[in-house]
Amino acid sequence: LDFALVRMPSSAKSIEHSEPSATSQTRRKCVFYDVAHSNNAARIRLWMRVQGGRGRRRLLEDSIETVTIGHDDLCSESYARVNPLGKVPAFVTDAGLHLFEASVIMGYLEDRFGDDPASGGRIDGEGEGATRGGPSLGLVPDTPDDRAFVNLLVRIHDLYIASPNCTQPSFSHTQGCMYLDPTETEFTPASRTMDVKTRAAKAAEIFKQLGWLEGRIRRPFMAGESMTHADLTWFPTSVF
Amino acid sequence: LDFALVRMPSSAKSIEHSEPSATSQTRRKCVFYDVAHSNNAARIRLWMRVQGGRGRRRLLEDSIETVTIGHDDLCSESYARVNPLGKVPAFVTDAGLHLFEASVIMGYLEDRFGDDPASGGRIDGEGEGATRGGPSLGLVPDTPDDRAFVNLLVRIHDLYIASPNCTQPSFSHTQGCMYLDPTETEFTPASRTMDVKTRAAKAAEIFKQLGWLEGRIRRPFMAGESMTHADLTWFPTSVF
Repeated sequence: LDFALVRMPSSAKSIEHSEPSATSQTRRKCVFYDVAHSNNAARIRLWMRVQGGRGRRRLLEDSIETVTIGHDDLCSESYARVNPLGKVPAFVTDAGLHLFEASVIMGYLEDRFGDDPASGGRIDGEGEGATRGGPSLGLVPDTPDDRAFVNLLVRIHDLYIASPNCTQPSFSHTQGCMYLDPTETEFTPASRTMDVKTRAAKAAEIFKQLGWLEGRIRRPFMAGESMTHADLTWFPTSVF
Repeated sequence: LDFALVRMPSSAKSIEHSEPSATSQTRRKCVFYDVAHSNNAARIRLWMRVQGGRGRRRLLEDSIETVTIGHDDLCSESYARVNPLGKVPAFVTDAGLHLFEASVIMGYLEDRFGDDPASGGRIDGEGEGATRGGPSLGLVPDTPDDRAFVNLLVRIHDLYIASPNCTQPSFSHTQGCMYLDPTETEFTPASRTMDVKTRAAKAAEIFKQLGWLEGRIRRPFMAGESMTHADLTWFPTSVF
């Protein structure tokens, strides 16, 4: 499976080596690279599902193709051409820009296909064919303070729970303490082992960050009355 | 020095324990907590300097107070009430919302005091008293793809170079390999030591990420023709 081809479904040629015709240009879609068990990719899926149910299904289907890859594919050379860090989610825009890091992709989706700041993030009507101007979609709050609060919740998740901060062997995200073995096993390759001391420290970190979170979140959703990016981000990790 | 007091300069009372009068409410400012040598705090300073020079100096002076603290203050109990992670920069909004993590604060500043998406980020005139509608300020690009590219550059800096992903002892950002000692010294407290093996891995990580960066950045600024958050973020770290 060559991902440099997959991301060009209409031409089956690498974008670097073909001058797309007008036809293939109009057909070209953004491509979202997903792995079924990834909690970080899951928020992208959730965003598309929620926005699809709120009147953007056709827009998203016409604009974005999802390519689900296997865990083993992450280390392949062809995937390295999609994301040199070998992580999912990744996203290639229809203009050929390669994005990775879930929150960067979420920002792009929101920016391009989501709530329109100029209309207060509203659309008219429900379901297919809805247009902007109706009830607020609510995934991005209305005020700078509330938006920053959501960004902070997402940031704490990404930094202190769900991402390594070094791509070298045996550096891990904090969440890895829940499932990475101290020595090489069937489930933990040598490059991802986590010693017992590190595991203990990271388990303490989860406790600390969840304690902070518990004291800060609002109700019924994490940032108050409506679902936001904070919920889409923390939910898949909480049930991982 | 009690930071819970400092952040309320007009009332000298904790926000939790006083019902501010109309006068103190109108006088209350946002507070930016800075440490002189922090590369992550420096981007906040740069943003205010650049935007101040582009017609927002009065707005920023009227709205934001900077409190510069010492490195030793970061571990104090009073600062823990500002930012429980004991890091700078931190920022308390005039509504009392406590923010930390530099990119979250940068997003807030841009959102509240920066480019107005509805006007294409333009202001009329230059210097004091300028109003919106003139030339683009350019710190946030005009298209979703370019905005996402800037966000990606910032994200790579934050995750893989400049932030720990665990607040427990002896976990460090990648940049720490440039100056943290393997054993306790005058300059490295016991909680921040970095062993030689970790240092070697993190030095390799810096090389890898800078290699990626070198291949991706545009010219003359990192994202092309104008200065963006990517430059404000990477510059202080590059000269750190």
